[in-house]
Amino acid sequence: MTLELPTRFERDWDRPVSDAPLRFAVIGLGGFARNTALPCIEESDYCETTAVVSGSPEKAAEVASEFDAEHALTYEEYADGVGSEDYDAVYVVTPNALHLPHVETAADLEKAVLCEKPLEADADRAERLVEVCEDAGVPLMTAYRMQAARSIRWIRRQVADGLIGDPVQIHGEFSYPLLANGGDPNQWRIDPDLSGGAALMDIGIYPINTARYVLDADPVAARGTTHNPDPAFEGVDEHVAAQLEFPDAVTASCTASFGASVASRFAITGTEGRIVVESVFGVDDACHLTIDVDGSHLEGTVAAPHEVSEEFDYFATAVLTEMGLAPDGRHGLTDVQIAEAVYESAEEGTRVEL
Amino acid sequence: MTLELPTRFERDWDRPVSDAPLRFAVIGLGGFARNTALPCIEESDYCETTAVVSGSPEKAAEVASEFDAEHALTYEEYADGVGSEDYDAVYVVTPNALHLPHVETAADLEKAVLCEKPLEADADRAERLVEVCEDAGVPLMTAYRMQAARSIRWIRRQVADGLIGDPVQIHGEFSYPLLANGGDPNQWRIDPDLSGGAALMDIGIYPINTARYVLDADPVAARGTTHNPDPAFEGVDEHVAAQLEFPDAVTASCTASFGASVASRFAITGTEGRIVVESVFGVDDACHLTIDVDGSHLEGTVAAPHEVSEEFDYFATAVLTEMGLAPDGRHGLTDVQIAEAVYESAEEGTRVEL
Repeated sequence: MTLELPTRFERDWDRPVSDAPLRFAVIGLGGFARNTALPCIEESDYCETTAVVSGSPEKAAEVASEFDAEHALTYEEYADGVGSEDYDAVYVVTPNALHLPHVETAADLEKAVLCEKPLEADADRAERLVEVCEDAGVPLMTAYRMQAARSIRWIRRQVADGLIGDPVQIHGEFSYPLLANGGDPNQWRIDPDLSGGAALMDIGIYPINTARYVLDADPVAARGTTHNPDPAFEGVDEHVAAQLEFPDAVTASCTASFGASVASRFAITGTEGRIVVESVFGVDDACHLTIDVDGSHLEGTVAAPHEVSEEFDYFATAVLTEMGLAPDGRHGLTDVQIAEAVYESAEEGTRVEL
Repeated sequence: MTLELPTRFERDWDRPVSDAPLRFAVIGLGGFARNTALPCIEESDYCETTAVVSGSPEKAAEVASEFDAEHALTYEEYADGVGSEDYDAVYVVTPNALHLPHVETAADLEKAVLCEKPLEADADRAERLVEVCEDAGVPLMTAYRMQAARSIRWIRRQVADGLIGDPVQIHGEFSYPLLANGGDPNQWRIDPDLSGGAALMDIGIYPINTARYVLDADPVAARGTTHNPDPAFEGVDEHVAAQLEFPDAVTASCTASFGASVASRFAITGTEGRIVVESVFGVDDACHLTIDVDGSHLEGTVAAPHEVSEEFDYFATAVLTEMGLAPDGRHGLTDVQIAEAVYESAEEGTRVEL
C-alpha cells in the first residue's frame, strides 16, 4: 500500500448551490460570535449575516455596523419577528440554557436553525428543542465544527475505508486554562444554571463527538470522573475524564479540563494502524497528522480552510440543496445524553448504559 | 523561565559501588531473558550472569554457553540450591504465576530478588511473595524498567519541581499486536492460569505504573473496561481501558491492547504545562519528548542508555550500597491490586476503591 498525505484537504460535499447566500440572524454576540463566527460567515462562500441579536442594544448596533448587518435586534425584537423577512436561518450561539427559547422562535418563524453545541443545558431541554424543530419542519443542525473540518472528514473516510483495520482504542484530550490571564470567573460557561456543566459540556464534547463521528457509531455505555478543586468551579466540573464503550469492543478515553494547560489531541488506534491529529480541537488549529500503517510512517501538516467557514457553507449547502443535513438535532441530543451519563457515573460510581 | 532539554540524560543515583559485580541467577529463559535481559546484564557496569535456569536442560546449556554462565540449571536444581554459592541475586523472569515458588527458593537461599512485573498472577500470591522476602530479610525489587529509564526519571523530577504546575490529567497508551506475524497463540501471556490476565497485566501495567511513579502517588479508585473479540484471548483481556483516580483531583486514562497496532505514549498535563513522551514503553525506545510550558515549546529525542541495563545497575547499586531500593515489593503488589480492581470494575460495572 502506498499512502500519501494530500497536499491540501478538499471538500467532499461540494455541489452547485443556487439561491445563495443563505442570510443569517446571529443570536448571541459573545466572544465566539464576534471573534470567530461572524468573520467566518463573511469569509464563507454561501452565507451572509443580515441580523445580529443581543441583550444589549448598544452591542447589537456596534456589531451590526462592524459586520454590515441590516438589523441590530434585542432578544425581545427577535422574539417578535422584527426583520425576519431579511434572514433565512438563525445561528444560536447564546449560553446553553437559552438555546431552547431562541430555537422556538426560529421554528415559529420557519427559519433553518444552526445551534451551537451542546444543544441545551440538559437532555430534556435538548429533546424539546429537537422536537420543536421536527414539529415545525425546520432544518436543525448541531454546530460541531470538527465535523466540518476537512482534516477530520478525511480521517473519517480513511477509517471507514479500513486504513487502520478495525478501530480499537481512541484517546481524546482537550484542555485549556479558562480562568488564566484574566479569564472571567463569572462567565456563563461555569455557571451550572446557564451551562448545565463546564469542562465536559463545553469542551469535553469535542473529543466525544469526534470519536462518534470518526467511528460512525454511538457509545453504549459511559464511565466518568469529575473534579473541581478550584472554588471558582463550584457546582460544575473543572476536570473530567470520560470512558466510553462503543460497539465492537471499541473504547474512547476522553478528558477535558478548564484548569489544565493546553492539550488538544485525537488519536485512534486500530488493528492495522494508527492516526493521530494534534492540535485539533482549538478553533482553526493547524492539524498535524501522524499516520502509522504497515510499517510506514507519514507525518505532516495539511492546509485546510477555517472549519467554521466550512461549517457555515456546509449548513447552507444542506439547506439550499438536496444534500441532506448532518449532524442533525438528534445527533446533538445524543451528546447531551452522553454527558448526563458521564455525570451520573461520576456521581454514582457506576457504569451507565446509553 | 529558560528551559532546555539536556543533550543526554544522566543517572541521578550514581555512587561508588564496591563488591561489584553482583552475580545473578536468571530464572526463566524466554524471549525477553535471552534477547534483552541477558545482553543487558552483559552491558551493565555492576552485574554479571553466573547461572541460568530453565525447564529445559538443553536450553539452559545453550544459553549458559552463549552468555558465559558457570551454571546451567533446571528448575529442580535451582530449588535444591545447586550452585547457589556462585550467585548473589536472582532475576525471576518466568510466567507470572510461577514467580512465587522461585522467590521462595531465593528467600530460603538468602539471595536478593529482582522479580519481573507483575509480581504474581493475583494479589494474594503477590502479597505472599512480598511477605516471603520480608520474613527472610532479603531485598526485593519489582522490575519496572520505566523507573530505571533516565528519561522517565528526568520527567518525574521536572514534575516534582513544579515544571507543569499541579498535575491534572495523564494519558497512557501501550499496544501491539501480540499474535500478528506468527505470534504464538498458546503463549503464557494469554493463558489466564499463568498470567492472571493479558493486556492489562502484561503491558497495561506500564502506563499505570509510570503514572504512579511520575506522580509519586497511588490511585484511590479504578474504573475499567475489557474486551476480547479475538477467540484466542478467551478468558483474558485482549483490550483494556482503565481510568484511575489519584489524590488531588488527578486522573490517569490508560489503555493497553494485544490486538491493536503499536501505540506507546505517555502524556501528563498540569495546570502550567504539559510533557509528552513517545515512543516510551517499548524496550529501549528512543523517547521523543515534547514539553509545552509558559508558551515555550521544546521538542527532541535525548540519548539515554538501555533502560534494562540501567535497571540491573540500579538494583545492584541498591543491594551493594546504602542507597535503598525502589520500587520494592509492596510497590509492585499495589499494581496487582490495581489490576484486580480494574478487572472487578470491568466485570461489575462499578467504581472500585483502592
